[in-house]
Amino acid sequence: MTSEDGREARPGNAGAGRGVNLKSAEAFVFPVRVYFEDTDAAGIAYYASYLRFLERGRTEWLRALGYGQEALREHTGIGFAVRSLAIEYLKPARLDDELLVVSRLREVARVRLVFDQRIERAGALLAQASVRVACVELKSMKPAALPRALRQTFGCLA
Amino acid sequence: MTSEDGREARPGNAGAGRGVNLKSAEAFVFPVRVYFEDTDAAGIAYYASYLRFLERGRTEWLRALGYGQEALREHTGIGFAVRSLAIEYLKPARLDDELLVVSRLREVARVRLVFDQRIERAGALLAQASVRVACVELKSMKPAALPRALRQTFGCLA
Amino acid sequence: MTSEDGREARPGNAGAGRGVNLKSAEAFVFPVRVYFEDTDAAGIAYYASYLRFLERGRTEWLRALGYGQEALREHTGIGFAVRSLAIEYLKPARLDDELLVVSRLREVARVRLVFDQRIERAGALLAQASVRVACVELKSMKPAALPRALRQTFGCLA
Amino acid sequence: MTSEDGREARPGNAGAGRGVNLKSAEAFVFPVRVYFEDTDAAGIAYYASYLRFLERGRTEWLRALGYGQEALREHTGIGFAVRSLAIEYLKPARLDDELLVVSRLREVARVRLVFDQRIERAGALLAQASVRVACVELKSMKPAALPRALRQTFGCLA
Repeated sequence: MTSEDGREARPGNAGAGRGVNLKSAEAFVFPVRVYFEDTDAAGIAYYASYLRFLERGRTEWLRALGYGQEALREHTGIGFAVRSLAIEYLKPARLDDELLVVSRLREVARVRLVFDQRIERAGALLAQASVRVACVELKSMKPAALPRALRQTFGCLA
Repeated sequence: MTSEDGREARPGNAGAGRGVNLKSAEAFVFPVRVYFEDTDAAGIAYYASYLRFLERGRTEWLRALGYGQEALREHTGIGFAVRSLAIEYLKPARLDDELLVVSRLREVARVRLVFDQRIERAGALLAQASVRVACVELKSMKPAALPRALRQTFGCLA
Repeated sequence: MTSEDGREARPGNAGAGRGVNLKSAEAFVFPVRVYFEDTDAAGIAYYASYLRFLERGRTEWLRALGYGQEALREHTGIGFAVRSLAIEYLKPARLDDELLVVSRLREVARVRLVFDQRIERAGALLAQASVRVACVELKSMKPAALPRALRQTFGCLA
Repeated sequence: MTSEDGREARPGNAGAGRGVNLKSAEAFVFPVRVYFEDTDAAGIAYYASYLRFLERGRTEWLRALGYGQEALREHTGIGFAVRSLAIEYLKPARLDDELLVVSRLREVARVRLVFDQRIERAGALLAQASVRVACVELKSMKPAALPRALRQTFGCLA
């Protein structure tokens, strides 16, 4: 059940108990487990797996604010595309590790969001990233203004 | 903290609240969310993604019994390798779906486990699979007898 | 440049030199290299990676017959969805292995194809699979009759 | 067949015909096809897929110089771990696209390599990245000096 702007009727319920949504400028924390699928023959998490973890963190952050991406697409035709990112890999994650993806919205502009994200294990920082995301009209993949409701929601967080 | 047979001191704690471990012959249920990483350009979950979900189900089943795979490897040198599987794809999973992976151990032999697994969404069956897994000595990838403790644990479930 | 039925003007050119398209009932052979992305912490190719390799084999088989899937989608709205598969993993593939995906169309029906596929390394059989694929109308994911031109092309091969 | 430093007897043969190894400071070009596995529900290549493509480019660059990573590991115990990367996504890649991964070694130090990499389609730049890679002792994942032979080989290219 979603309203016309793509906001789900029961915001964040699906992620409840899994993500912790701190208020305002604070960080959103989402747990991720490392499975075989995430590792490689060097015995550690493959470097592209971290980008999958980071996206789960951003997706659950958005869901905790009440917006599922599939519902957004259906109701507004917009979505998000990563425009650039920089990531530092500090310590390797390993099979069975339980990681935390810590996401913080640093900047909101008309068509753009910038996130600071960290991947941690038991308090140790494994990776940190800065990710620039554009709001796009999904059919054309062209930049689109953030829907007003999202911008207001995000504006309170950055 | 793990004992000598690779059993974790606090069985299943990491999965607590996420997997539900039913007793004996009953099924183990683990939730999985569909993210962009799992989908493809046809707009649905990619067919290989289901194998990743199934493995998460088996891994969390094992963890709920007290065995992490990384700890098993360190302490016993053994692990599990899929020998064969058959899967039917009945209905597509889509972005943002919350799925349940339902795993049931059907058969235990000296070096082999057979699982029946299902992927469900809100009560609908999306996929069902039968997966034959061998216990292997990880260095050589040769078949190895299941450690006695595991076999006893599994024996009560099949 | 594609014709109205989605057949590319220069059939198979992009795959030329990489796949070998044998006539009629014979097998189509496509090479695949094992990279870190395909492996896991057990030091071997992850079991879901084989499904990615098998799909590359089927996709390049189709391309060698003159049909790109993106062009098919644009021109006919149809695509292919795997309905079921059975796979046996006989020997592990490892990092840097150069594999051959050997694909053979076993059966063609109005809305369905069945493939026998093998993954080989230097003459050794690593995995074998049987894959049932449905022709679907991509918007609805409902079964659709194979376009006549494809059926004629496939009919000569099975 | 590999020599003691892990160099393959027939340098680059496996990549022959697929990668083009330009001399000295010039770029190494490796083709990559976009399959369903690489795409997501937005209809384009998933943002982490580009990291897989970039790694294939670096791996084939190394192979063209005569070094397979599996052979390196066996003979020297060393490997490569990405320490950081920055990537810009300029235009989306789509299903069936044939891409070129263009890799150029920009810097060689005692334990570190820096690559400039681009992903192109028919002359259009889709993505560009800078990737810092450390030479590591694989058992410990600690930094290790590049083997002398590699350093000499690389030194002529940067």
